[in-house]
Amino acid sequence: MRVLILGGGGMVGQKLAHKLEAEGLDGTPVQLTLHDIAFPEGGAGTDRRMGNLSVAAEGAALAAERFDLIYFLASIVSGEAEINFDLGWQTNLWPMWHFLEALRAQHRATRGEYVPRVVFTSSIAVFGGPYPDKIGDEFLTSPQTSYGAQKASCELLVQDFSRKGFIDGMSLRLPTICVRPGKANLAASSFFSAIIREPLDGMEAVLPVPDTVRHWHASPKSAAGFLTHAAGLDTAKLDGRRALNLPGISCTVAEQIEALRDVAGNNVVALIKPQPDAAVAKIVEGWPRNFAPDRAKALGFKAENTFREIIDVYVAEDLPGR
Amino acid sequence: MRVLILGGGGMVGQKLAHKLEAEGLDGTPVQLTLHDIAFPEGGAGTDRRMGNLSVAAEGAALAAERFDLIYFLASIVSGEAEINFDLGWQTNLWPMWHFLEALRAQHRATRGEYVPRVVFTSSIAVFGGPYPDKIGDEFLTSPQTSYGAQKASCELLVQDFSRKGFIDGMSLRLPTICVRPGKANLAASSFFSAIIREPLDGMEAVLPVPDTVRHWHASPKSAAGFLTHAAGLDTAKLDGRRALNLPGISCTVAEQIEALRDVAGNNVVALIKPQPDAAVAKIVEGWPRNFAPDRAKALGFKAENTFREIIDVYVAEDLPGR
Repeated sequence: MRVLILGGGGMVGQKLAHKLEAEGLDGTPVQLTLHDIAFPEGGAGTDRRMGNLSVAAEGAALAAERFDLIYFLASIVSGEAEINFDLGWQTNLWPMWHFLEALRAQHRATRGEYVPRVVFTSSIAVFGGPYPDKIGDEFLTSPQTSYGAQKASCELLVQDFSRKGFIDGMSLRLPTICVRPGKANLAASSFFSAIIREPLDGMEAVLPVPDTVRHWHASPKSAAGFLTHAAGLDTAKLDGRRALNLPGISCTVAEQIEALRDVAGNNVVALIKPQPDAAVAKIVEGWPRNFAPDRAKALGFKAENTFREIIDVYVAEDLPGR
Repeated sequence: MRVLILGGGGMVGQKLAHKLEAEGLDGTPVQLTLHDIAFPEGGAGTDRRMGNLSVAAEGAALAAERFDLIYFLASIVSGEAEINFDLGWQTNLWPMWHFLEALRAQHRATRGEYVPRVVFTSSIAVFGGPYPDKIGDEFLTSPQTSYGAQKASCELLVQDFSRKGFIDGMSLRLPTICVRPGKANLAASSFFSAIIREPLDGMEAVLPVPDTVRHWHASPKSAAGFLTHAAGLDTAKLDGRRALNLPGISCTVAEQIEALRDVAGNNVVALIKPQPDAAVAKIVEGWPRNFAPDRAKALGFKAENTFREIIDVYVAEDLPGR
């Protein structure tokens, strides 16, 4: 099986690539191609294509290779898409359109034989408040960020191209991925990882919101697991609703901090410095706090059960020096 | 106040134009410009611009005129968008993007002073089954037609451009408009009007679905009323959710027929010829049957109370020879 990861140089892309290299899919080895604008030194993937999907011809060239399975992870993050309106739409929506059109051209060229599985990483940012206590599988998408609007637009494309039989796609609305290894990024959610990651590395971390803030998390390991699970899913079971809310952990920042205390003690927790930032607090206030992802659970998607487990995953897989 | 109707040559566009010419907005006369690929002979509108919004430069030239209020009604219908995938997306999505971008350029050119009210006619086709008995204001959009996916995509654009303050927009999810005057069109919903319109005109009409089919209707007069009401709405009351389910009448085809019998008698009803069409029945099976449009009602949107009233509107306004 030939697999393409668009956005394969990013954090989730690399986690997924490592997993596919180590385990294959259902025990079968895969032949892996990664595409991104940049790649980490070392890391996963031997067939690395450096390029920019915003150039429609690049996507078309990749489509012409007729991969069996395509992960579409390429995206700029929420904070960046909010600051730069043009760049957000040009990066997070149009490349999807051009790439799907290129896949459709391959479908046509093979007289309908080529129908690749496409797995798109959407986000809980497609939702906008006010929310019920738990967001159910039939809750409306009404994004309150450009990033969320772009993800929701891509979901509509993936669904319609799939409904017409040009691709066999689905959109996975990832929880906020935590603990992200490496450096902070421009995502407004970046602090959720930083307050665990930096103290464990002996560094201070700023907490810009009250510790009563509740949010929805899954580990990078779970993200990779969602993606490999999606590869083998019988999409007929989606009943035409090809965007899925995924399992995760709902917890407050205070609960995150207590889990960190359990793992690493008071001195580490003391490195978290509350420094209220009204702008970040306002953004985060608009985010989902909890879900009842019944469909995804019934379809076999699995995440952690406690935030402690999420920290344990980070310590086992990503803590520097391990 | 200068008003532009994109799609002003269509049925709803003409109804709206007639209303604006007759009543103005809140009693104030409006200066009206209509744009479309074709116009009926006679009819409303003296400033008629013949053109194609799919040409981005045409939309940009219109945007440069900085209308105070813009109605975006231009669209190809559901049946056509389903048959011609390319034409559907090229007509029902991209012109919206290019036009909004052109409005944003005007916003920038005026240093943020120009923020036009934009009213987009979306559709209940943004929904996909299975449905609750009544679709509430927080029900997910999961379209099962390309037309619905295109309308839902436009809603996301209107919402994000509005959220950023480039325009002050909203999307109105029109019920199926019934009774449509004139000829049948390619919309799969066309028969809902035909079974009233043709018999009243002494002609036979084919009924392709069982008379137990339940659907959601409003008259062309109500559609024009929704649109003028939206012009003056305080959009702050939308709380950032700028797509609205509108009021309408939920009734079965049998109830439609009984209303027709009340108005016109048995001989007219006898002109309805059941002729089951599995393809049409399958499409219609996927359509919404009933709504609880609480938000729109609270915001003052009004439709008919019975299907009889819908027929009465047709007889009063559109019956040939009246």
